[in-house]
Amino acid sequence: MKIGIVGGTGREGRGLAVRWAKAGHDVFIGSRQAEKGALKAAELSKEFGVGIRGADNVAACEYAELIIVTVPYGAHRSTFESIKDAVGDKVVVDITVPLQPPQVRSVNLPEGESAALEARALLGKGTRLVAALHHISSEHLSDPEHSFDCDVLVCGDDKEARAAVISLVADLGLRGVDAGVLKNAIALESLTPVLLHINRHYKSVGSGIRITGIPETE
Amino acid sequence: MKIGIVGGTGREGRGLAVRWAKAGHDVFIGSRQAEKGALKAAELSKEFGVGIRGADNVAACEYAELIIVTVPYGAHRSTFESIKDAVGDKVVVDITVPLQPPQVRSVNLPEGESAALEARALLGKGTRLVAALHHISSEHLSDPEHSFDCDVLVCGDDKEARAAVISLVADLGLRGVDAGVLKNAIALESLTPVLLHINRHYKSVGSGIRITGIPETE
Repeated sequence: MKIGIVGGTGREGRGLAVRWAKAGHDVFIGSRQAEKGALKAAELSKEFGVGIRGADNVAACEYAELIIVTVPYGAHRSTFESIKDAVGDKVVVDITVPLQPPQVRSVNLPEGESAALEARALLGKGTRLVAALHHISSEHLSDPEHSFDCDVLVCGDDKEARAAVISLVADLGLRGVDAGVLKNAIALESLTPVLLHINRHYKSVGSGIRITGIPETE
Repeated sequence: MKIGIVGGTGREGRGLAVRWAKAGHDVFIGSRQAEKGALKAAELSKEFGVGIRGADNVAACEYAELIIVTVPYGAHRSTFESIKDAVGDKVVVDITVPLQPPQVRSVNLPEGESAALEARALLGKGTRLVAALHHISSEHLSDPEHSFDCDVLVCGDDKEARAAVISLVADLGLRGVDAGVLKNAIALESLTPVLLHINRHYKSVGSGIRITGIPETE
């Protein structure tokens, strides 16, 4: 699948791009500046022996069949505004958590109740928006060799889009779990500050969650 | 410890009362009507060979060193108003999830952002309010013999109160995990509709969560 990673020069982008490229997907890293995206793509391609493309965010959206957006919450609105016209009916996966530094260990409900709901409002109501990957520590995600011990909750109003993302998540080496409608992004996003608290309280690097009581194979 | 269970005649109350009584705690079941509380206490005491007390909710609060409130969200406000004067500086554990039937598989943010935050606003700012036990299915909780495969997230602004509740949760046969400040109840409560969705999607009875990446022994 052709995957475009908007904001893909960051820590999360590195892990996502390399893992998906290794799994056989065609990955395109986007950045606000085309040169930065191209540079990062070349760098990762060389380091991991894969063929990753790179340029600006709009180019990444135009290239892709499925778009991942990974930006800090401070750049969330401007990023979605900048890619709005390039998205069309493609599935867009928002992995943003609306953290409010320095209070990152306390839930912060943004104005639109969740970043993903804000993103959909910006892109338009019919957008196939999915929210996922909020609970993987950036430290673990940035390391293409790390073996995960956690699940990924995936929500969105389009059932097929959720299924497509769950399948892509499997290619990262993670189990995706269907978490229902996009409004449930409120729960998914707000769990991240709890995990950040748990990391500090229990002196762990990347706590995560597993869903219990459901069949093992998905 | 002397534990008062407000709304203790319901499904959750049954499991909590019996498990804690078996673990050696002195349990008092409260109900809106004293006779119902007394009846349920006598019934459970006989069935499980334990000594559980019962009367009205205020009596349960007056008896207890620690108070658990387990009521449907529709009765949340009126219940907290009715026990307000009997709480004092005791630890109060709110296990309410603000579900909005019939949409129980979609996050519902109440006016005060979370039931527990609303409870604290009702009781007064200094109240030692803790929120916990949102993710145990009432089916599993009502069965005093069920063996759990999930964790319990515990949040509240008073660190010692959190620790006390984590210890009580262990007596139920569950691992409690420190989830930080009371505001994080937004995350804890809103995860329940997600689990209810997961139950339906994966045809499971009581999905739950486990926190990974932290030391096993707490």
